[in-house]
Amino acid sequence: MKKGIANYNVGDGFDGFMMIKSASKGVASNGKPFLTLILKDASGEIESKLWEATSEDEAVFQAEELVKLSGEVTSFRGRPQLKIQSIRPVQATDGVAPEDFVEKAPIKKEALMERITEAVFEMKNPNIQRLVRYFVQKYQEALLTFPAATKNHHAYVSGLAHHIVSMLNLARELKELYPSLNKDLLYAGVILHDLGKLKELSGAAAPNYTMEGKLIGHIPMMVQEIGQAAEELKITGEEVTILQHLVLSHHGKSEWGSPKPPLVREAEVLHLIDMLDAKMNMLDRALGKVQPGEFTERLFSMEQRSFYKPLFEDK
Amino acid sequence: MKKGIANYNVGDGFDGFMMIKSASKGVASNGKPFLTLILKDASGEIESKLWEATSEDEAVFQAEELVKLSGEVTSFRGRPQLKIQSIRPVQATDGVAPEDFVEKAPIKKEALMERITEAVFEMKNPNIQRLVRYFVQKYQEALLTFPAATKNHHAYVSGLAHHIVSMLNLARELKELYPSLNKDLLYAGVILHDLGKLKELSGAAAPNYTMEGKLIGHIPMMVQEIGQAAEELKITGEEVTILQHLVLSHHGKSEWGSPKPPLVREAEVLHLIDMLDAKMNMLDRALGKVQPGEFTERLFSMEQRSFYKPLFEDK
Amino acid sequence: MKKGIANYNVGDGFDGFMMIKSASKGVASNGKPFLTLILKDASGEIESKLWEATSEDEAVFQAEELVKLSGEVTSFRGRPQLKIQSIRPVQATDGVAPEDFVEKAPIKKEALMERITEAVFEMKNPNIQRLVRYFVQKYQEALLTFPAATKNHHAYVSGLAHHIVSMLNLARELKELYPSLNKDLLYAGVILHDLGKLKELSGAAAPNYTMEGKLIGHIPMMVQEIGQAAEELKITGEEVTILQHLVLSHHGKSEWGSPKPPLVREAEVLHLIDMLDAKMNMLDRALGKVQPGEFTERLFSMEQRSFYKPLFEDK
Amino acid sequence: MKKGIANYNVGDGFDGFMMIKSASKGVASNGKPFLTLILKDASGEIESKLWEATSEDEAVFQAEELVKLSGEVTSFRGRPQLKIQSIRPVQATDGVAPEDFVEKAPIKKEALMERITEAVFEMKNPNIQRLVRYFVQKYQEALLTFPAATKNHHAYVSGLAHHIVSMLNLARELKELYPSLNKDLLYAGVILHDLGKLKELSGAAAPNYTMEGKLIGHIPMMVQEIGQAAEELKITGEEVTILQHLVLSHHGKSEWGSPKPPLVREAEVLHLIDMLDAKMNMLDRALGKVQPGEFTERLFSMEQRSFYKPLFEDK
Amino acid sequence: MKKGIANYNVGDGFDGFMMIKSASKGVASNGKPFLTLILKDASGEIESKLWEATSEDEAVFQAEELVKLSGEVTSFRGRPQLKIQSIRPVQATDGVAPEDFVEKAPIKKEALMERITEAVFEMKNPNIQRLVRYFVQKYQEALLTFPAATKNHHAYVSGLAHHIVSMLNLARELKELYPSLNKDLLYAGVILHDLGKLKELSGAAAPNYTMEGKLIGHIPMMVQEIGQAAEELKITGEEVTILQHLVLSHHGKSEWGSPKPPLVREAEVLHLIDMLDAKMNMLDRALGKVQPGEFTERLFSMEQRSFYKPLFEDK
Amino acid sequence: MKKGIANYNVGDGFDGFMMIKSASKGVASNGKPFLTLILKDASGEIESKLWEATSEDEAVFQAEELVKLSGEVTSFRGRPQLKIQSIRPVQATDGVAPEDFVEKAPIKKEALMERITEAVFEMKNPNIQRLVRYFVQKYQEALLTFPAATKNHHAYVSGLAHHIVSMLNLARELKELYPSLNKDLLYAGVILHDLGKLKELSGAAAPNYTMEGKLIGHIPMMVQEIGQAAEELKITGEEVTILQHLVLSHHGKSEWGSPKPPLVREAEVLHLIDMLDAKMNMLDRALGKVQPGEFTERLFSMEQRSFYKPLFEDK
Repeated sequence: MKKGIANYNVGDGFDGFMMIKSASKGVASNGKPFLTLILKDASGEIESKLWEATSEDEAVFQAEELVKLSGEVTSFRGRPQLKIQSIRPVQATDGVAPEDFVEKAPIKKEALMERITEAVFEMKNPNIQRLVRYFVQKYQEALLTFPAATKNHHAYVSGLAHHIVSMLNLARELKELYPSLNKDLLYAGVILHDLGKLKELSGAAAPNYTMEGKLIGHIPMMVQEIGQAAEELKITGEEVTILQHLVLSHHGKSEWGSPKPPLVREAEVLHLIDMLDAKMNMLDRALGKVQPGEFTERLFSMEQRSFYKPLFEDK
Repeated sequence: MKKGIANYNVGDGFDGFMMIKSASKGVASNGKPFLTLILKDASGEIESKLWEATSEDEAVFQAEELVKLSGEVTSFRGRPQLKIQSIRPVQATDGVAPEDFVEKAPIKKEALMERITEAVFEMKNPNIQRLVRYFVQKYQEALLTFPAATKNHHAYVSGLAHHIVSMLNLARELKELYPSLNKDLLYAGVILHDLGKLKELSGAAAPNYTMEGKLIGHIPMMVQEIGQAAEELKITGEEVTILQHLVLSHHGKSEWGSPKPPLVREAEVLHLIDMLDAKMNMLDRALGKVQPGEFTERLFSMEQRSFYKPLFEDK
Repeated sequence: MKKGIANYNVGDGFDGFMMIKSASKGVASNGKPFLTLILKDASGEIESKLWEATSEDEAVFQAEELVKLSGEVTSFRGRPQLKIQSIRPVQATDGVAPEDFVEKAPIKKEALMERITEAVFEMKNPNIQRLVRYFVQKYQEALLTFPAATKNHHAYVSGLAHHIVSMLNLARELKELYPSLNKDLLYAGVILHDLGKLKELSGAAAPNYTMEGKLIGHIPMMVQEIGQAAEELKITGEEVTILQHLVLSHHGKSEWGSPKPPLVREAEVLHLIDMLDAKMNMLDRALGKVQPGEFTERLFSMEQRSFYKPLFEDK
Repeated sequence: MKKGIANYNVGDGFDGFMMIKSASKGVASNGKPFLTLILKDASGEIESKLWEATSEDEAVFQAEELVKLSGEVTSFRGRPQLKIQSIRPVQATDGVAPEDFVEKAPIKKEALMERITEAVFEMKNPNIQRLVRYFVQKYQEALLTFPAATKNHHAYVSGLAHHIVSMLNLARELKELYPSLNKDLLYAGVILHDLGKLKELSGAAAPNYTMEGKLIGHIPMMVQEIGQAAEELKITGEEVTILQHLVLSHHGKSEWGSPKPPLVREAEVLHLIDMLDAKMNMLDRALGKVQPGEFTERLFSMEQRSFYKPLFEDK
Repeated sequence: MKKGIANYNVGDGFDGFMMIKSASKGVASNGKPFLTLILKDASGEIESKLWEATSEDEAVFQAEELVKLSGEVTSFRGRPQLKIQSIRPVQATDGVAPEDFVEKAPIKKEALMERITEAVFEMKNPNIQRLVRYFVQKYQEALLTFPAATKNHHAYVSGLAHHIVSMLNLARELKELYPSLNKDLLYAGVILHDLGKLKELSGAAAPNYTMEGKLIGHIPMMVQEIGQAAEELKITGEEVTILQHLVLSHHGKSEWGSPKPPLVREAEVLHLIDMLDAKMNMLDRALGKVQPGEFTERLFSMEQRSFYKPLFEDK
Repeated sequence: MKKGIANYNVGDGFDGFMMIKSASKGVASNGKPFLTLILKDASGEIESKLWEATSEDEAVFQAEELVKLSGEVTSFRGRPQLKIQSIRPVQATDGVAPEDFVEKAPIKKEALMERITEAVFEMKNPNIQRLVRYFVQKYQEALLTFPAATKNHHAYVSGLAHHIVSMLNLARELKELYPSLNKDLLYAGVILHDLGKLKELSGAAAPNYTMEGKLIGHIPMMVQEIGQAAEELKITGEEVTILQHLVLSHHGKSEWGSPKPPLVREAEVLHLIDMLDAKMNMLDRALGKVQPGEFTERLFSMEQRSFYKPLFEDK
């Protein structure tokens, strides 16, 4: 058995376990009901149809359930589909657990936490340090489990912390290369910039947008939280406004959701390294799926570009 | 003597009082120093040059000082300029006061306050009412004196309250015509939408943008204040988020500074009547300066359009 | 039986009458012919498939025919579809008539006509009044039955007159709030602005675009008609040009089909209240279909936004 | 003496006649009045200052007057300026006439008229032919003297007819190369497309935009005139609508003033050859002023481009 | 039997030969495999399904194979589809050859070559002539067989040469009408402008984009080739740079793939006649498929416009 | 005496040496000639007027000459201007040399060369290494002296090499953080990406755009050179195309001059670090001129933004 559904090709047989990500009922052209199942494991997902589904099937095969399947990978309208030969719910004796079917960051939570803590320790400006520590402590649990987005980049468990840590590493190197940068501001911006997502999204495992997330958005929500935290901690001074500005402007342009563009040097850098890390994450995932000499699928958040993997990459 | 500098034409003689709005020193092509004075009264402003200015002139003729001048209105590069024949500081016996030279809303502060108070009284949703009352009380003084903008529309003392009251009147009529509208929300949105300007601008008389105004902007600043007020008043419930959304979205588009477009019916209406009232204010001022059969000057915030005043308007 | 197909949910049984809006033949994957029927009543429409359709079926079940059906509402690719159990043409004894299945404005034609006539009576400028009266009389029948658009807003029988009357009411209130407005111009603009649609569209019931509508469009067509009417009525003077300008500019921008933007105060107001009334109409319809706490479907002509209906709306 | 002011360089002495295009009064930094004169001859124009102008000077040196000047071409802010040594009004004995100072098309009016008439004769479709002949006769005088624009291309006496004739020639060749084109339509579109300018502009010699020109524009004005002419001539049939469409769409895009884009083959061709002839006219004029190896000034209506004249052009 | 699949309507029976353009395997909703065949002849193409395809079918019915079919033209999702009754590979005795099923330019290769050669002969500038002759000789074979594009305009065998020859004819006439044009440059630009496509595309018959085509594009590839050819031929002088500029700028704008816009008169003309000829080719093809009084399908590369064929076209 | 003209304020006296960057003649409003001198030293530049200039002055005070001046810094139209009290050409005994007045990179040429050489040595792919070494050797002299641009970023002697070395350092750190990057490609892209500027610009000291630079641009020029170098070195293989692609796409978008966007991972990174380094260079220069609590001037190539220097930066 191959390792992970993402590595199966059309024509391959499949015999193993998967988690149902979503299940919805339809009616076939012959008038009989069927279920459309989106199945996933830690490597990716695949669509499947359960034809002539009984109402019992409907009751059993629901989202978040684990199943044992055998079947074959076929192609439907150019996309892979799993043709089911047999399917049953998992049993206690199968020895599989939900966490095996969820994608996670490649670095452990403890290591991510350690790097974030270290960055907070390095800060010299007491106002900045206290504000950042406040948020790291307040949201520690969610911060270490949420994804950075529902799709596109770092869209996996602990994705947000993984993104933060990558950006902290980038920030550390940039401080070496451009010594005029204020490291405290940059580290604080990196840690805080996306924390509003902890309220914009509904959870770590199967995140959706909350009502507040849709009507306000993570950027103004976080600007507000920084203001409230500063009041609670009785911190005054320009640091509060500047940190709010870093969060506010990190999307770079008003069309992209930042009502003010970066107007402080570290805000500009924060925007650039956020883009850089997100793009590296997307490219690594997309290029990992193709062979040298091939183009990737079109990447939605990179202007629909298809990237090429050079032949000499393999040497 | 004509009423107000805005009503003088090229060739007219001038003999009267004005306030210096700004004064800056230059050096003429003959090497001698001169002062560029921007002079204003309640009707408008005009540029003027004080040639061969002495250092004593420089000390005396400064911003916010009142002066007595005689001279003639000429034209320089197509714009009117006051050619000074004589100029002196005002004396106690001249009987003029600074407030005579500042443009004000055409409605008295007391009447504006009364209409706003009435609107708050009409609200039925207690959460919305308490939040709005909190802000009206907290900012009463500034709310009644600040302009709605530094230029363009309602750019005069009490301009913000004037703008609010016009919009409240529009909102009341729209509620009559479209009964499905939630009047509480609409009134609350009207009163709160621009209150962030009280912190974005430095004052009522000669407003500039504050540092916080430039880096954060009045919209996110007010969203944050609503959140903090709700916490202080221990108000929870969707009303808080919806009011924040109304403020957040009232510029209508991300390119215009609203990170979310209107996504609630009353938010859409708030955006439309804000535009409508601002445009009526700008058009009334611009058309008031031209005769039937003429075009206005180009209006910067109406896409540089020149409006025509029909000949039959006079009949 | 529920009131109107728009109020049925997936899983509901249906037993009642509908009008066929369109019928088209296809071939199923088993090689057998079927009919795709779009069925409608006054509340909305639903798609349906008549499998294994005979050539007799094809002859009987045609557009504009009334049918009696029983079946069940199912879901196909996320959209509701009516699964037919039985279908037959209506009989004389069924007691249903075509007009029962067509959506109409919520105000009667007579009341709409009365309000328009009243507005014409109020006009003081004789040139404007004569021109407007000419058009109201010339097009009275069509004016009272045409929709304002083929989809989006006021897309129902008498929709155009309904839209005009709502805008007249708005205009009346705006004249109260902004007395500098010229009411004659505003009323005339409201009544004339979309009359070109009477030639752009092919009819009131199932409107399509005419060749002339596609190649010239309702705006230039109406500008031309005003010119010809003025000539016929021997009206000269700026009023003709200004009325043409109001019609020409009412879409607000060249990208939206107005070769000149509004350059007269009342033209700007006409554009704004046209948008306002259209949007209120679309929002009322979309919000009427969802419960508090839900978002509407995406609204095509409101930049694909989904609007939220607050939970407290119900209180 | 060189031929035409456009051929003088900085440092050249000037001694000859010119027409005053415009004269405006200013006040110098020494407080003395001066006149800014724009002087022109058939080759181009130049700015000039008449320092310490008396009120008699002001009365004499007015727009459209002819003057005799001597002086030197200097440079002011990078643009040529004529430094006046002496200036006087022309006398009867000077033997110069206003028409010598106005730029004209390089082809005589009679020849232009002949080519237009010939094109009308070649038309086979009687409806199209009658409509076009109607306009050629109605506007013959203006058609042969107006410019095609106030600046940019063909901005000289008879410019419009010159533009039409060039386009007729282009159309004739295109018909040879692409026989599927309808020559009647193409010729008619060429002759009619810009006739609305005869009403949009105030005259042939020193054209300004009329009120109607500003509020309606030449395109909808001409669409209307075609409709009225067809009614007058009792012509019905698709030809009228198609000709209106050709005029309506000849700017190619709604952003450029055409509410409908070309939707008929000949409309597309009309748009393309209109652009082609206008651009050739602008390029010939601009390149005529520079030497091989040089770039032209920036051309406003060609997206601010500077064109290069290759060195080998001279060979 | 009708002439060419493009002339069949829904309901027509078909009995004849076609070439398989592409074949791909799918799985039907009943779980059985089928083949989707795109079939073509010289007039156009049609989709078809071969239900319950055996693995032998799969082996036999492959791209570029010729087949004999009988069936009926039906409609699927609004597009024609050929319902197969019988299908078999062609036999030697059928007397059909692959070249009968490929669309070709309406002018023979020899005639195209003759016109190109004639244009090269007419050139007077030896540098330009030598460079162009070099490319015509180097690429003669491909130049005479490649299409000008994979779809849209001149997308058939010898399409590129056909496009070049049409443009040469246009250029010759423009030189007559605008004598200031440099004919050598214009002819050279016409012949060279798209030669990079010979490397951007994989072949003449069923062209795809090469890796180099995707990463570099035909414009920079051809600029480079001109540079290398000049070096090889030891040609120096501005002609080389100007020819590179003509190729580089012929798409007209940076958004359309030209890093520099046209900055030489002939470059501007080259861009305009390239557009003109491409559009005439697309319009002739699209209008050829509809009757007078109808609109064409939407044309993708003409901004999705549908063109109208006037009723009087037929007279 | 202060260090460098950029550090003088209005009102300061000046007594020292400067280089004339440009000199142009004008005529004052009193009719007398004057010279406008742009004066520079290594810190920046200032405008100055030499009133009543003799023809001898004109002959002496020319671009690139060194002068000794005394005078005072004044303000003209809001920009500093040096009011000259005395001016003379430098003498041998003044002991100043042209190189003292030219801005240079903060790192010595030898150190820049060493870092570039080191990067070439680290490359493992022989094709990439040979191509890059070829260019470093061919252009060594110019590469070490040219600026990276004529204004905006790294616009000083050795600016290009400084920019390359900063980017190499960034690239080295990114390879550490994202090990999937191909370091050879990245280093090669960094070194080659702007080498076309050596031909696009006319020289290192006072660079202008060459004709070829204006008509072709540095990007296509360099793509061509890589192709020719590969041919000369007999290097074949995908490396050549990929390197051309890196250069071609490094501006990121077609609107910014790259006919293809980045389609290879290292091309995307190259684009991002090019922007990052350019922006850091511009920000450091602009922020260096203001005090904490102030905003910088508007930065043209950063979308006209003014950046804020926080008050706490000084601590």
